[in-house]
Amino acid sequence: MAAAALRTVVLLSGGLDSATLLAAARAAGHDCYALTVDYGQRHAAELAAARALATTYAVREHRVARVDLGQFGGSALTDPALAVPETASAGIPVTYVPARNTVMLAVALAWAEVLAAHEIHIGVNAIDYAGYPDCRPPFIAAFNELARVATKAGLDACAPRIEAPLMQLGKAEIVRWGTTLGVDYARTVSCYQADAGGRACGRCDACRLRAQGFATAGLADPTRYVSISG
Amino acid sequence: MAAAALRTVVLLSGGLDSATLLAAARAAGHDCYALTVDYGQRHAAELAAARALATTYAVREHRVARVDLGQFGGSALTDPALAVPETASAGIPVTYVPARNTVMLAVALAWAEVLAAHEIHIGVNAIDYAGYPDCRPPFIAAFNELARVATKAGLDACAPRIEAPLMQLGKAEIVRWGTTLGVDYARTVSCYQADAGGRACGRCDACRLRAQGFATAGLADPTRYVSISG
Repeated sequence: MAAAALRTVVLLSGGLDSATLLAAARAAGHDCYALTVDYGQRHAAELAAARALATTYAVREHRVARVDLGQFGGSALTDPALAVPETASAGIPVTYVPARNTVMLAVALAWAEVLAAHEIHIGVNAIDYAGYPDCRPPFIAAFNELARVATKAGLDACAPRIEAPLMQLGKAEIVRWGTTLGVDYARTVSCYQADAGGRACGRCDACRLRAQGFATAGLADPTRYVSISG
Repeated sequence: MAAAALRTVVLLSGGLDSATLLAAARAAGHDCYALTVDYGQRHAAELAAARALATTYAVREHRVARVDLGQFGGSALTDPALAVPETASAGIPVTYVPARNTVMLAVALAWAEVLAAHEIHIGVNAIDYAGYPDCRPPFIAAFNELARVATKAGLDACAPRIEAPLMQLGKAEIVRWGTTLGVDYARTVSCYQADAGGRACGRCDACRLRAQGFATAGLADPTRYVSISG
């Protein structure tokens, strides 16, 4: 008799990283429950991308959970008064959303505990990233410790494990891996200011890291851009 | 010149504990920012109580953040299909909301970072409580460690500290303290199934712990009950 598949909550934003994450979990045979956290991002295109990916990868369930972080402001991703930077900057950029990954993992933990899930997968990576503190290994380690003491499942020694399979991969390695898994990156949205149709600006940090990933991997960039960028 | 007041986010449910928490923080001179997390609880009476308390204690701002944990079910507080127990039970009761305090502190951390707050206060206590894992000292310690590594503020060594001033107090000690601070407990709602007017059932765990607190403290119980309970 085959071993039961691991029941896994996958955080699915609709971007390149989480598409790869979901494809990898499905390829490894996990029973996937996709969770999209709508925290007041600037556009709905990535939510549409997340829905399409959830269908493509035949997840058991896809849930969208709204958390109104936008009311607090403090980030160019949630506050229309702050411009998304289009040149590289020193330090942590204004696109940092305070406590975003903490909130997303907290909501994932809530669902995972109800599902009695074994794992929670999150697509953070600490190589080609913008310097966000909640994309580093110490953050994942601290959340794992929290999950053990915060939950009834943890008291029973079966708290869901937080896994970040992309943590040590560069963008080029991520797109190479995803390409071998058959991910259609044209249907993913990474841009911080994509238009309503999901077309990317080609100029923000997220676009630059993504384009560089395809270039370094020697793969054609399938991203749909608003216009040829300078 | 007087020292600047500590800027503090206070988690305010509208119940007995958080009313005491807010009164104590104001009495200690904190600049208070009240945060109510609406996670799909069964009734709106405690939200109304929270609003009234925020006004009474003249907080700088009061925010209500919605997080849709109700869609996940798994708790009698968020799932109408599960009855709130009216007799004491062994183990962690069905009123446990998976990852609730993790979600509430995560949202508080988001606002606290935007505000550059020094502290976050949460009204959990580990003495007269229902056995919830996220009401114990190891939970608060783990969340403090998380806040340090998850945030930009933490990288700058100024992450907000999570404080749980009621942690080691029994209900009788809490109501005695609040009474010396002038808290009007008639305006707080602790009941898991209060009616629309905020009147308590007198039979659920929360009502039993609260009534016992007033009795042990030798104070009149000002709670407004639906009817005399047996």
